[in-house]
Amino acid sequence: MGAASGKVLALAGGVGGAKLALGLANVLPPEQLVIVVNTGDDEEFHGLRVSPDLDTVMYTLAGLANPEAGWGLAGESFEALKMLSRYGAPTWFNLGDRDLATHIRRTELLRQGRSLSEATRELCRGLGVQHAVAPMTDDKVRTMVDTVEGLLPFQEYFVRRRCEPQARGARFHGADASKPSPAFDEALGSARALAFCPSNPFLSIDPILAVGGVRERIRAFTGPRLVVSPIVGGEALRGPAAKMMREMGRPVSCVSVAEGYAGLCDLFVIDQADAAHVDEIKALGMAPHVTNTVMNADRDKTALARFVCRLLEGGGQ
Amino acid sequence: MGAASGKVLALAGGVGGAKLALGLANVLPPEQLVIVVNTGDDEEFHGLRVSPDLDTVMYTLAGLANPEAGWGLAGESFEALKMLSRYGAPTWFNLGDRDLATHIRRTELLRQGRSLSEATRELCRGLGVQHAVAPMTDDKVRTMVDTVEGLLPFQEYFVRRRCEPQARGARFHGADASKPSPAFDEALGSARALAFCPSNPFLSIDPILAVGGVRERIRAFTGPRLVVSPIVGGEALRGPAAKMMREMGRPVSCVSVAEGYAGLCDLFVIDQADAAHVDEIKALGMAPHVTNTVMNADRDKTALARFVCRLLEGGGQ
Repeated sequence: MGAASGKVLALAGGVGGAKLALGLANVLPPEQLVIVVNTGDDEEFHGLRVSPDLDTVMYTLAGLANPEAGWGLAGESFEALKMLSRYGAPTWFNLGDRDLATHIRRTELLRQGRSLSEATRELCRGLGVQHAVAPMTDDKVRTMVDTVEGLLPFQEYFVRRRCEPQARGARFHGADASKPSPAFDEALGSARALAFCPSNPFLSIDPILAVGGVRERIRAFTGPRLVVSPIVGGEALRGPAAKMMREMGRPVSCVSVAEGYAGLCDLFVIDQADAAHVDEIKALGMAPHVTNTVMNADRDKTALARFVCRLLEGGGQ
Repeated sequence: MGAASGKVLALAGGVGGAKLALGLANVLPPEQLVIVVNTGDDEEFHGLRVSPDLDTVMYTLAGLANPEAGWGLAGESFEALKMLSRYGAPTWFNLGDRDLATHIRRTELLRQGRSLSEATRELCRGLGVQHAVAPMTDDKVRTMVDTVEGLLPFQEYFVRRRCEPQARGARFHGADASKPSPAFDEALGSARALAFCPSNPFLSIDPILAVGGVRERIRAFTGPRLVVSPIVGGEALRGPAAKMMREMGRPVSCVSVAEGYAGLCDLFVIDQADAAHVDEIKALGMAPHVTNTVMNADRDKTALARFVCRLLEGGGQ
């Protein structure tokens, strides 16, 4: 990758996005990568500001993430949460003791008048994360899942209700009035390439696209734009993407994902399991590329990141 | 004690006060005791409101206090604090994981517009504390220690500097404009008796007396008023009271303590070690009473509380 100059802008949600983000961070030096993360999931618990996707990316890059759970830190204790429960606080959202420190510190920095971007930078510095991690926006955008029971705040739907209510779509409260964070704004103007990490298109990527002006700017982006499909072999590797597709009456397939990216993507990366779909992808105006997209071990993440970087250096051919 | 009616109002600071408060709670039913606690030590750490003396009393009554440390909860872990330290937050004030939950919950309740009295009641309910524990005031009063290095906020002096700087006295910022908390106000008007627990007179009791109108109301209090001396055998059992007396040029003796309570106290309880001082106490217009005031085991606390209650039932004779 040595010859490339300029930055790759990676857009990520939670676990799947964090895996490719880690791969990219293994492959690209800090000055060539900026990871912009969904904050539509952000919520306040116990008066503390929780940014689950930012934390998942940050913890993953710091080597501290809990690989089994898909959230939080490895080897966590939950003493504070047990005590909060004694005090009658609602504790359906799991917060470990060390994780709580992140939210305590973030909340304090925000109350001192720092932006979420600045707070994130400081937290990353504390954990030794050298690559740039930025929120999609410093404004308040809240993902609401449109279900048959009505609109549910994201964490209500995702954690408390375990994605059970039938979903019809999502809305992003505050998105119209929001602006991209400074790092996102700069990267939209100057990055040499853009990669959508394999995150839930409805709940992780759509909120990023809903931030004021972002969809239009990605439409007009001149560098290569690449998507890694989060749907592999007709299933989501994690989370409710496949379930939501079914509930919204769409085929659960990488092709359905690709349809959502029409006009926003040049290169569409699918798993070997989906090689049969290449012609459908082509028909949508994207160049399909087939590789192993299932990232279990660290070497899978690095290998996929190398594959992605090679494609992006190719300039979208 | 069964015959008595009305409440005993106990005034307490941290550890020493909490010990007698526990003894009184072992002896008196909840409807006959209200424990009013110093909040001049309160401080904000990491954006969270910490009320060390309230918590010491509450944890002690709940049977959860750490008996060795004199602060915090028994068997605490410190995972969050270690993480806060990684984030560059100042961590000289020790906060355990379960203790943090108390501060998180209190801060949330206060931000929701509840008073410190209400928040304390809710925390006590969560821990199963049945006796009334109330802050001296719901207003902001901050103890500043007047040292040769200048005014130091209480926790700076007490924890960060380990009481090293030579002290000349203390001031209580905000006290003039403060009002007693509702429970304190009610008890000042209707309690049948008043007991000053063996707490540091300069740093635990004086802030309570500094709350608007309190000194005058205790001066005019018609029931028996009792002090248990925190100085035993010329030393403080805990904390900087003796050191401060020396620095302020006073003899380190229960008599110096008694002098500070002139006009506020009828019954002055001293330890057997100080039996030689009974005439000096009498000369100050207080009735001296000698017993064991060193509370190590639970039975010591209960025995001293029984002794105190018997004296208070005697009506100040």
